[in-house]
Amino acid sequence: MSLDRLFHAESVAIVGASRQPTKRGYQAILTLQQEQFRGAIYPVNPKEKQILGLPCYPTVSAIPGPVDLALITTPAATIKGILEDCGQKGVAGAVIIAGGFGELGSEGRRIEDQVTATARRQDIRVIGPNTSGMINPHRRLNLVGLKDMRPGDIALLSQSGNMALTLITEARLKSRKGFSCYVGVGNEADIRFDEYLSYFLEDPATRAILMYVEGLRDGRRFLQTAYHATTQKPVILLKSGRSATGKRSAGSHTGALAGMSEVALGAFERAGIVVIENSDELFPAAETLSSLPPVRNNKVAILADGGGHATIAADFLTDLGLELPRLSDKTQEALRNLLPAAASVPNPVDVAGGTDADPSLFADCARIILNDPQVGGLLLVGLFGGYGIRFAEELALKEEDAAHQMGKLVQKRNKPIVVHSLYSSEKPHALDLLRYYGITVYDSLEIACKCVSVLARYGKTRKSYRPKFNFVMDWGRKAIAEGRAIIDKARGENRTALLEHEGKKLFQLHGARVSRDILARTADEAVAAAALVDRPVALKIVSPDILHKTDAGGVKIDLDDARAIRAAYADIMQNAQAYAPQADIRGILVSPMAAPGTELIIGTKYDDQFGPIIMFGLGGIMVEVLKDVAFRVLPISLLSAGRMIEEIKSYPLLTGTRNTPPRDKRAIKRLLMTCSEVMEAYPDILEIDLNPVIAYEKGLQVVDVRIILKDDTAALR
Amino acid sequence: MSLDRLFHAESVAIVGASRQPTKRGYQAILTLQQEQFRGAIYPVNPKEKQILGLPCYPTVSAIPGPVDLALITTPAATIKGILEDCGQKGVAGAVIIAGGFGELGSEGRRIEDQVTATARRQDIRVIGPNTSGMINPHRRLNLVGLKDMRPGDIALLSQSGNMALTLITEARLKSRKGFSCYVGVGNEADIRFDEYLSYFLEDPATRAILMYVEGLRDGRRFLQTAYHATTQKPVILLKSGRSATGKRSAGSHTGALAGMSEVALGAFERAGIVVIENSDELFPAAETLSSLPPVRNNKVAILADGGGHATIAADFLTDLGLELPRLSDKTQEALRNLLPAAASVPNPVDVAGGTDADPSLFADCARIILNDPQVGGLLLVGLFGGYGIRFAEELALKEEDAAHQMGKLVQKRNKPIVVHSLYSSEKPHALDLLRYYGITVYDSLEIACKCVSVLARYGKTRKSYRPKFNFVMDWGRKAIAEGRAIIDKARGENRTALLEHEGKKLFQLHGARVSRDILARTADEAVAAAALVDRPVALKIVSPDILHKTDAGGVKIDLDDARAIRAAYADIMQNAQAYAPQADIRGILVSPMAAPGTELIIGTKYDDQFGPIIMFGLGGIMVEVLKDVAFRVLPISLLSAGRMIEEIKSYPLLTGTRNTPPRDKRAIKRLLMTCSEVMEAYPDILEIDLNPVIAYEKGLQVVDVRIILKDDTAALR
Repeated sequence: MSLDRLFHAESVAIVGASRQPTKRGYQAILTLQQEQFRGAIYPVNPKEKQILGLPCYPTVSAIPGPVDLALITTPAATIKGILEDCGQKGVAGAVIIAGGFGELGSEGRRIEDQVTATARRQDIRVIGPNTSGMINPHRRLNLVGLKDMRPGDIALLSQSGNMALTLITEARLKSRKGFSCYVGVGNEADIRFDEYLSYFLEDPATRAILMYVEGLRDGRRFLQTAYHATTQKPVILLKSGRSATGKRSAGSHTGALAGMSEVALGAFERAGIVVIENSDELFPAAETLSSLPPVRNNKVAILADGGGHATIAADFLTDLGLELPRLSDKTQEALRNLLPAAASVPNPVDVAGGTDADPSLFADCARIILNDPQVGGLLLVGLFGGYGIRFAEELALKEEDAAHQMGKLVQKRNKPIVVHSLYSSEKPHALDLLRYYGITVYDSLEIACKCVSVLARYGKTRKSYRPKFNFVMDWGRKAIAEGRAIIDKARGENRTALLEHEGKKLFQLHGARVSRDILARTADEAVAAAALVDRPVALKIVSPDILHKTDAGGVKIDLDDARAIRAAYADIMQNAQAYAPQADIRGILVSPMAAPGTELIIGTKYDDQFGPIIMFGLGGIMVEVLKDVAFRVLPISLLSAGRMIEEIKSYPLLTGTRNTPPRDKRAIKRLLMTCSEVMEAYPDILEIDLNPVIAYEKGLQVVDVRIILKDDTAALR
Repeated sequence: MSLDRLFHAESVAIVGASRQPTKRGYQAILTLQQEQFRGAIYPVNPKEKQILGLPCYPTVSAIPGPVDLALITTPAATIKGILEDCGQKGVAGAVIIAGGFGELGSEGRRIEDQVTATARRQDIRVIGPNTSGMINPHRRLNLVGLKDMRPGDIALLSQSGNMALTLITEARLKSRKGFSCYVGVGNEADIRFDEYLSYFLEDPATRAILMYVEGLRDGRRFLQTAYHATTQKPVILLKSGRSATGKRSAGSHTGALAGMSEVALGAFERAGIVVIENSDELFPAAETLSSLPPVRNNKVAILADGGGHATIAADFLTDLGLELPRLSDKTQEALRNLLPAAASVPNPVDVAGGTDADPSLFADCARIILNDPQVGGLLLVGLFGGYGIRFAEELALKEEDAAHQMGKLVQKRNKPIVVHSLYSSEKPHALDLLRYYGITVYDSLEIACKCVSVLARYGKTRKSYRPKFNFVMDWGRKAIAEGRAIIDKARGENRTALLEHEGKKLFQLHGARVSRDILARTADEAVAAAALVDRPVALKIVSPDILHKTDAGGVKIDLDDARAIRAAYADIMQNAQAYAPQADIRGILVSPMAAPGTELIIGTKYDDQFGPIIMFGLGGIMVEVLKDVAFRVLPISLLSAGRMIEEIKSYPLLTGTRNTPPRDKRAIKRLLMTCSEVMEAYPDILEIDLNPVIAYEKGLQVVDVRIILKDDTAALR
C-alpha cells in the first residue's frame, strides 16, 4: 500500500485528545487549527464531549466520517487496543508518539513486535513509535507542533526530534528553502527508512531527501533502494553514534542497532548517498543539492576579492578532492582585459580591488569563467553582498544587478555557482536575490566549499550509475550443483565448517586458482601423493573437530623427501591425538608449497545491519598489527574490487617496490569477485577466510580456505 | 626599542595625504577624525595646503610637533626617501601600505631589503610593507578604515586583510568580544611575527593572541617566543596554504615562504599554540580562550534536552580527544532527584523534557555536574535560549535566571561552560547574558565542541610547560674537543662529508652505541681486523669521493673467513676503481655484522623556516614505500622523542608482535636525543643519516652513519 493516505491525510483522529493545554492531545489539535489544516479533525477521548470547539468521540470507530490517519498520544500499554479499534474503522495509518518500546531493550522490543503484528493484521501502516510525529507543510498537516516549518522541496527523515528542529530552524533563519515533509522515523517498527526513501523518490513535491540516522533496521534494503533513488534525487545523510559514548547515547535514544562502522559509510557512498559528518553541513548540503545543477567534471574555479579567502578555499577544495584547473589562455586574457593589473587570473581569480567601484563586474567575471569549457562550477568567496554596506549604498544596486545576472547565468550554462559572503548574516538584498535563483550563500567558507564538493560528488554519482548493480544478493542463482553437494554433505554430517579440501574444491568450481592438494589417509599415501605434486610439500591435518590446525600441531611445511614426509605424518597424527583425543580425523592433506610472493588475506563475514561483507588486506603485520584493511558490503563489482585493493595503505607493496615486482592486480580482483559470487551462491555460508593467498607477478595461489556455515540458515539469511 | 610608541602613537603623519575621497590618503584622515582619534593628525603632501580642515605639510620633517608614527600611502619607489625624512624627524614607526616588494619575487625582495636597511639606519620600526595597516581601537587609532572594530582583549595579527575583516565582522555580529589591536603583518620586512607576539604578551589590554599566518620569515624564533607566551596567554593560529593551489595563492599574495609542512603544525603544537584548521573555528576559539578558564583534566560532561544533539556532541568530543567520564553515583543520584524518570544521567545528561516547564533547572543541573570533582568543564547543547521562543514567553525570564546562575557558577568553580543553542541567531537575551559572564554560545554544535576541546588543549599546555626547553639551539655548548677535531680535519681537507668511521666516532663520543669498526688499508689488515671483532663481518669502502658505497659496489656483507675477506677486499677495490677512477681511497672498514632486529632510520635536515629538524621511521617498506615517518623541530626533549616513536603508524612493530619481541624504546629515545645533541653541538653539520639502526629487545646498534657538512656554515646557521 502506498503511504499516500498517510502523508496526504484528509482526516485525522487525535487519540488521547485532551482539554489540558500542557498535554500533547490538546496541543496537536490546536496546532492543526492554527495552521488551518483543511481536512477533518476528530478528537478521541471517552471522557470528553468537546475539545477546542470540536465534538469528541469515545473511540475511533465511533467517528462518523472516514479517517485516514490516527495520531496516538496515549502510553505504550494502550496502543494495541487502539490499533484494533482503528482497524475496524479502516484507518490507513497511525503515528505513535509513545516511547517505552525497543529503545528500552529486549522487553520493550517484545512489546514493539506485538504492536507491529497488530498493525499488520489491521492493515495499518505505523510511523514510529517513539517519534516526534510527522508534518506535511504543503497540506498544513502538522502533527508535531513545530511552528514555522516552511513548505518546500526537501524531505526530512530524522531519528532525532532535536535534529529536525535544528534543521527546520536553520532553513527558516538562513535560507529561502523549505520542506516537502518531515517524518520522525522513531523506532522503524513498521515503516523503515528504505520505504520512506521509495515514497519520497516518487513524491513530486520532493527534490532532495535529507536524513539523520542513528541506526538502520534493514541496512541492505536501504542500500538497494538508495542506489536507485540517488540517480534521480540527491539523498543526504548524517550518521551519528560513531564513538563509544555516542553509541551509548544513540542506543538509549532510539533503540536502534547503533554504531555503524566504516563498512556503513563506505556502503552509503557506493549507493550514491552524500554522507555528511559535520552536522553544520547537513542542511547546506541539502539546500545546495536541491537548488543547483551538479558539477559534472569535478573541476571548479574560485573567484575572490583579495587573497586570504581564496587561499583557504583552494586548500579546502583540494582537500575535498576537487580539481582547480588553470584557466585557458583565452579565459585569462578576457579576465585580464576586465580587471586591474594587480589581479591574478589563473585560478583562483583575485579581482584585487577591481570590483570596488562596480561589483557587477563579478557577474562579468563569472560569465567568462563559466564559459571556459573545463570549468564545471564556480565558488565566489569573500565580500559580495557587502559592497553596499562597506563602501557606498548605491553599490548595493550594482550587487543586485550582478545577482540577477549570475542567477540567469546558472540557468543558461547549467553550471552551479556557490557563494561565500561574510555579510550573509547582515542579510543584504543581493544575497536574497541569489538565493531566489537557487544560488546558495553561506557565511562559512568551509561550508561553501563543502557544498561545492557535494555538487561534484553528486555529478559523479549520476555518471557512474550502473543499473545492473544494486546490492542484491541473488541467492542461489550462481550456485553449482557440485558445490551445493559439498555443503549438503557437511550439513548431512551436522558440521558447521567445510574441511580445507572441500573449501578449496568449492572455490575451484567457481574458477579460483587453488593449490592442487591430495588427501592421504596413510603415510604411504602421503608419500605417493607428494610424488604427484610439486615439491616441497606441506602436510595438514583434516578433521572437522580441528579448525585451528596450526595450534593443534597439525601442520608441517617444506617437506622434500619420503623420510621427512613419513616423520611429519607420524608427528601430526600424534599431535592431533594429544590435542583432541576424540577427534574425527579424515586424513592429512598433501599440498605443494607455494612459491614466495606477497601474502594476502581475504575474508567475508556478516554485519548486523548490512549482511554479508568482504574484507581485504595484506598478510603478516599489515593486517595483524597495522589493521590495514578495506571493507565492502557484498556483492561487489569489479570496479569496487579494484578500489578496495587501491584503498589500503599498503597498496604500494602491490605496485612493486625496489625489491619486489608488481603483483597481479587483475587476479586479485577476480578472486575478490569469486568470493562475492560464492557468498551469493550459497546462502548457507556465514564466513569465508582465505588466509593466506599468495600473489605473484602473474597469478596467485589460494593456500588455505576456511568456510564456516550458518547455524540456522533461515535466521541469518 | 619597544613597539609601544607605534601602538600607542599620540601623533600620526599621513604621508601621501590627499583631497580626493577615493584615495587612501584621504580616507585615512577621515577615519581618524570620524573615530575621534585624540592625538595629532598631520597630513603630508607638498602639493596641498589643507586637507579635511587640517594644515598640510610638505614633508614629515616640516611638521612642528613630535611625530610617533607615519602612515605611508605612497608607492614602493618613494618609500626610501620618505623613511629618511622620517628619520630626521625622529619618527618611531612607519606603516607601509604599498605592495611591490617581496611578494613579487627576488627583484621585489631586493627593494624590500633596501627599505628595511634604511629603516634600521634611521631607527624606525616598520609594519608591513604590503599591509592593510594597523588599528588600536582602545586609542581610536584606526589606520585601516575598517569600521566598527569593537575594543576588547583579543590581539589580531593577520597576513590577510580579508581574513581580518572576516574576524572583525564575526566578532561584531556574533559575540560581545572585541580586539585590543589589529596588525596587518604584511611581508614582515622589519617587525616579524615573533616580535609582535612578545609585544602582545606584555600588553595588559590583551588576553589572547589570534593569528592568520600564510608563512613565517623566522619560524624558529617564533617558536621560541610562542613557547613562553602560550603559558601566559593563549595563542591561536590558522595556517593556510597547505595545498599546491593554496600555496600558489598564498605565494602570490604575501610573498611569504609559504607551504609549511606537517613539521610546522607539529612544532606549533609543541610550542603550546592552538592550531586551527577550519577558519570557522578561528574566532570562536579565540573568544572562548580569552573568556573562560581552561579544562584542567581533559574531562567534560554534556548536558542536553533530547538525544540527537547529545549523540553528535559525544562523537565530536571523543574525536577531539576529550574524555566523557561516567558521573559519580552521588552526582547521578542528585540529578535523578531533580529530573523526570525518562532522563538519562550517566553523561551525557539528557533532561528528557524535565526543563520544559522551568528551564532554570539547567542551572541546577550544571551546578550538580560541575560539583563532581572529575568533571573539568561542561557543554550545554540544544535548546537553551529558545524556551521563551518555542513555548511561553515567561520561560525566557527563567532562562535569564539560569544564565545569571551559570555565569556565577563558572566564576565560583573556575570551570568553563560552553553553550550550543540553536536559537543563537534569534538573539534571545538569556544568551547575551551568558556571553556577558564570558560563557560562549554558538549555533554550531561542532564549533561548540571544538571550543571545549581548545579549552582542554590549553589546560594541558599550561600543565606541561617546562621552562628549560624552548627550541633554542645552544650551538657548540655540548661540543666535545675530539668531535670538533674530526670536523675540523674534514674541513681542512675541504670535505663536506664525514667518512663513515668519523661519523661513528662522533656519535660514540656522544654516547651512542655504534658498531666496533676497524679501518684496514690492506687485505692482510682486514683479515687481522676481522679476528678482533665478532664475525661475520662486512667490508665497506672508505673514500671521501664515494658517498653512495652500495651503488659503487663498495660493500660486501656476511664474510666469515679469511678467504672470503680477501676476495671481498679485492672485489671492492676493483669496483671502486671502476666507479671512480680518481677516488681518494682511504681504506676499507671492517665491521661486525649486526644481529637481526628491527631496522630503524633516523635523519636530520634543515627546514627553510624552522632550521634543524629530525625524522624517525622504520627501515624497509615502512619509510620507503609507506612514508611512515615522524618529524620534529630540533632540539627535542626525551618526551618529544617518545612521542615521535609512538606516533608512527608502525609503532606496534616496536611494542612486540606474535613473531617479534618488543624493542628497546628507551635506547631509541636516547639515540634520538643524541642526534639532537650532535646537531646542536656542531653547527657545521647540515644533515645526519643513521641508516640503518638495528633495534633489539635490549639496546640497539648504529650500523651506518652519514654526516654532511654545510657548504658555508655562516649562511645556514
